[in-house]
Amino acid sequence: MKSAAPPVERRAQRRVAEDKWRTGLTRIEPNRILVRGYPLDEIMGRLSFGEAIYLLLMGEVPSPGVGRLMEAMLVSFIDHGATPPSTLAARNTATTGAPLRACVAAGLLGFGRYHGGDIESCMQFLDAGLELVREGATYREAAERVVAQSHEKGDPVPGFGHRFHTRDPRAARLFQMALELEVEGHHIQMIRAVEMRLAEHPDESGRVLPVNIDGAIAAVCGDLGIPPSIADALFVISRVPGIAAHAEEERTRQTPMRQIDPKDHRYDGPSERRLPERRK
Amino acid sequence: MKSAAPPVERRAQRRVAEDKWRTGLTRIEPNRILVRGYPLDEIMGRLSFGEAIYLLLMGEVPSPGVGRLMEAMLVSFIDHGATPPSTLAARNTATTGAPLRACVAAGLLGFGRYHGGDIESCMQFLDAGLELVREGATYREAAERVVAQSHEKGDPVPGFGHRFHTRDPRAARLFQMALELEVEGHHIQMIRAVEMRLAEHPDESGRVLPVNIDGAIAAVCGDLGIPPSIADALFVISRVPGIAAHAEEERTRQTPMRQIDPKDHRYDGPSERRLPERRK
Amino acid sequence: MKSAAPPVERRAQRRVAEDKWRTGLTRIEPNRILVRGYPLDEIMGRLSFGEAIYLLLMGEVPSPGVGRLMEAMLVSFIDHGATPPSTLAARNTATTGAPLRACVAAGLLGFGRYHGGDIESCMQFLDAGLELVREGATYREAAERVVAQSHEKGDPVPGFGHRFHTRDPRAARLFQMALELEVEGHHIQMIRAVEMRLAEHPDESGRVLPVNIDGAIAAVCGDLGIPPSIADALFVISRVPGIAAHAEEERTRQTPMRQIDPKDHRYDGPSERRLPERRK
Amino acid sequence: MKSAAPPVERRAQRRVAEDKWRTGLTRIEPNRILVRGYPLDEIMGRLSFGEAIYLLLMGEVPSPGVGRLMEAMLVSFIDHGATPPSTLAARNTATTGAPLRACVAAGLLGFGRYHGGDIESCMQFLDAGLELVREGATYREAAERVVAQSHEKGDPVPGFGHRFHTRDPRAARLFQMALELEVEGHHIQMIRAVEMRLAEHPDESGRVLPVNIDGAIAAVCGDLGIPPSIADALFVISRVPGIAAHAEEERTRQTPMRQIDPKDHRYDGPSERRLPERRK
Repeated sequence: MKSAAPPVERRAQRRVAEDKWRTGLTRIEPNRILVRGYPLDEIMGRLSFGEAIYLLLMGEVPSPGVGRLMEAMLVSFIDHGATPPSTLAARNTATTGAPLRACVAAGLLGFGRYHGGDIESCMQFLDAGLELVREGATYREAAERVVAQSHEKGDPVPGFGHRFHTRDPRAARLFQMALELEVEGHHIQMIRAVEMRLAEHPDESGRVLPVNIDGAIAAVCGDLGIPPSIADALFVISRVPGIAAHAEEERTRQTPMRQIDPKDHRYDGPSERRLPERRK
Repeated sequence: MKSAAPPVERRAQRRVAEDKWRTGLTRIEPNRILVRGYPLDEIMGRLSFGEAIYLLLMGEVPSPGVGRLMEAMLVSFIDHGATPPSTLAARNTATTGAPLRACVAAGLLGFGRYHGGDIESCMQFLDAGLELVREGATYREAAERVVAQSHEKGDPVPGFGHRFHTRDPRAARLFQMALELEVEGHHIQMIRAVEMRLAEHPDESGRVLPVNIDGAIAAVCGDLGIPPSIADALFVISRVPGIAAHAEEERTRQTPMRQIDPKDHRYDGPSERRLPERRK
Repeated sequence: MKSAAPPVERRAQRRVAEDKWRTGLTRIEPNRILVRGYPLDEIMGRLSFGEAIYLLLMGEVPSPGVGRLMEAMLVSFIDHGATPPSTLAARNTATTGAPLRACVAAGLLGFGRYHGGDIESCMQFLDAGLELVREGATYREAAERVVAQSHEKGDPVPGFGHRFHTRDPRAARLFQMALELEVEGHHIQMIRAVEMRLAEHPDESGRVLPVNIDGAIAAVCGDLGIPPSIADALFVISRVPGIAAHAEEERTRQTPMRQIDPKDHRYDGPSERRLPERRK
Repeated sequence: MKSAAPPVERRAQRRVAEDKWRTGLTRIEPNRILVRGYPLDEIMGRLSFGEAIYLLLMGEVPSPGVGRLMEAMLVSFIDHGATPPSTLAARNTATTGAPLRACVAAGLLGFGRYHGGDIESCMQFLDAGLELVREGATYREAAERVVAQSHEKGDPVPGFGHRFHTRDPRAARLFQMALELEVEGHHIQMIRAVEMRLAEHPDESGRVLPVNIDGAIAAVCGDLGIPPSIADALFVISRVPGIAAHAEEERTRQTPMRQIDPKDHRYDGPSERRLPERRK
């Protein structure tokens, strides 16, 4: 418990402007709300939610290309079905009749070291590799060394492998978009080198670990200059709709206080369909 | 404590398909993720985050007009500065060095009856008025009666009034968009009638209560056929980026374990600016 | 969003004592901590945790008898195995590697209308019955009427019935202690009358609904003059150790990111044992 | 996102006993609840809440002396006034009208690296010192070295110093009880040596850092054989009543949606008083 009132002399000058604490996010005045300087009513209808998220977190309106990548990254994480522990925490909360906000909060708390933490660690992993490149190593050599370091520590290579997908369709799509939008940079080059390294050296079980969506987002964020802590915030933001949708479905389709067996469910939604032509 | 194992006979047939519980949101198969039937990698880059949120919660891809209103509603709530109690709960959590997801969860829990609950109650309020209209009352008469009912109960009129804004710029903008996109319907007509009623009869303090953003969203969601519980989910989703941005700013700009006085801060971000022309 | 800075004139006199907000719980001075007036270091070792909880919430040191009932009520809720949804929310959070405090928070959020809300509603239910008694009805008549009211509303009778126990051993023990400690009063008399009424009139399925621990605590709290909101706080406090123990066990005994089927577990702790003689 | 259904072959044998997951905490049978083997109704009224917490977390009924220390440790953390960020997170949640459990959850999330994390790090710090003692160093030498290591890393010495108290009355009382109850061991000896070392070498500002309650609890838990993760659980459990009391007071004494300035409050509870004689 390290909390206390401030020393007296500090109280004395409490109202001096210099003593006020600062925020640079949103200015509130009567009938006027400025987000990073832009009137909120002006950006409504002009910036998408994804672009506004970028503006709020990064401080500037994204270029159209960066905006599209933001939307794609946010969409890529929007849901992963009923079995992630975060979603199950939210469903177990919803079955008690708790309000939606409590279900979503419980779901967010269902992230941790093994669930959603990979983006930040993969960004640090890629930066470690790029550090070696700056020191003169080739991407291939750098990849070899950082992978070896992970193995020595007994850590999995962050951003690679998925319990369920042998090829993560979200990662493939994100890299394709980064290519088309010409934002590929050193981080994507680095993760490609790591992917190649892992492909040449399957693990003991003979499996080749594919890049997962965490890895793809880590690389793209790195190339967009988005710092790890903001990338982590994007991940948290992106999954909220999925958690909310599951909590809402739990409340509306299931009986209260049920025992939720994650392995025992069945999908009964629409079967595979394509977007209308105008969307392509 | 009302939890228990299911009766034996139920266990016995646990694996019968009929006994499985159902979800219609997202289908997960190896290397294939279908959100409401659409391959997630196909909607990445084709649907915006806001449209994907609509798809996930409502089950269908929104029309372009509805999609734009979704984006605008999500953007309208994205942040309201450092003083909402939800934001302060998140900042007080961030100052302890807690991880971002914990700060965001604490912020979401900082919603309640007096903070963010107005959308749902305003939708019920408008529906009560529309019920009277269906029974033959004019909008003017219906507005008169539902306002009177709130006053008799001693309740504030939900969706009207703001501690800080005498004219909520977000509400005005949302109504303008609804008009332009031709989605105005009975709910907007109803809230307009209530607004007129309140304008003609100022409260004892002589103040005229303006529609606030909760009221505008309630009316627009009503006309879009979005049920109250989904409208509540949209509200929760829309504020997450703001809470996350404040938690992140707290962590990066302030000293840990500080005493946060909400009245004692100063905005030091960019001064008012306009969107680049191409955005208009 | 109804938050705002206070009007200017209020800021001006911010430091006037009368303008300060008040708390009557704990006084903090350098090297001195007074809980409800008692030096914290003096009550350490002299009041039990349960008695200190009563002091903090009710404002006075409980009599020895009331203190023993407090301990018993807190102990009665301490855990109910692995299947309550609150416990499962905590375990699903723990399996992700989240810190203990996040698991406990998720568990607490796993309380709601159907899970833990019964104490408050049962207290109101008993008070409604006692109101009738004050108006001249016998306990028997009052019980008959309040039960009928619940049935008319289609509500279950709060504080009665358990999915798993046909006779709740915790309720029986608590009533026995209240008898021995001579704190039985009108609320216990009222719940007894309701119990009798339900015994004489089994539900359609022929089951007789027994008092559950929520009902017993509601009645005892009523007779001790503990208000419903404090009784609700006691419930929240009492289950925290159980939730923490399950989160800790999940972390230490299970593999991370597992799929938790609540129906599929087995107890492997010590078999039934008695307390040492000195404890009886 | 690393969640998935288990491989088919695993599903097949799902019901084989060996495949069930285990819990050793509480056995639930119809009309029978065994906590670590003891019937819950039997321990009600026979074990205090603090002893039951020890039983649940450690697996055995504590000796009377250990039980008294448990109570004292739990009481020592029960509240620290209105200014800890965890308490402020709970009050900012309560002012929105959120339910008590949400306020308590938000409060718990207001613990982090700088707030409540000291117990675990101090236990590791003391163990590092004791490791040196086992290798032949004197306590004095070991203290000198571990303190030096903290300083080299630029870390504060965990378990020492308090923003507000120059002598933590809770720590003094806990050590006195450990002495009287004859549970003093190597950890307390170690922390004493560290305290002496720091007293002989004040920091640059000339201050002598006293042991704080986190340090005292770390040492006592170490000597009682309570592992760091359980000590951390005790800390979380112990503060819940204080957070709940502040949330309840916020709701009952203050106006909703107020701006909470932690520096601007005044204590108006009972002035200092002593326990009744029978309690000493």
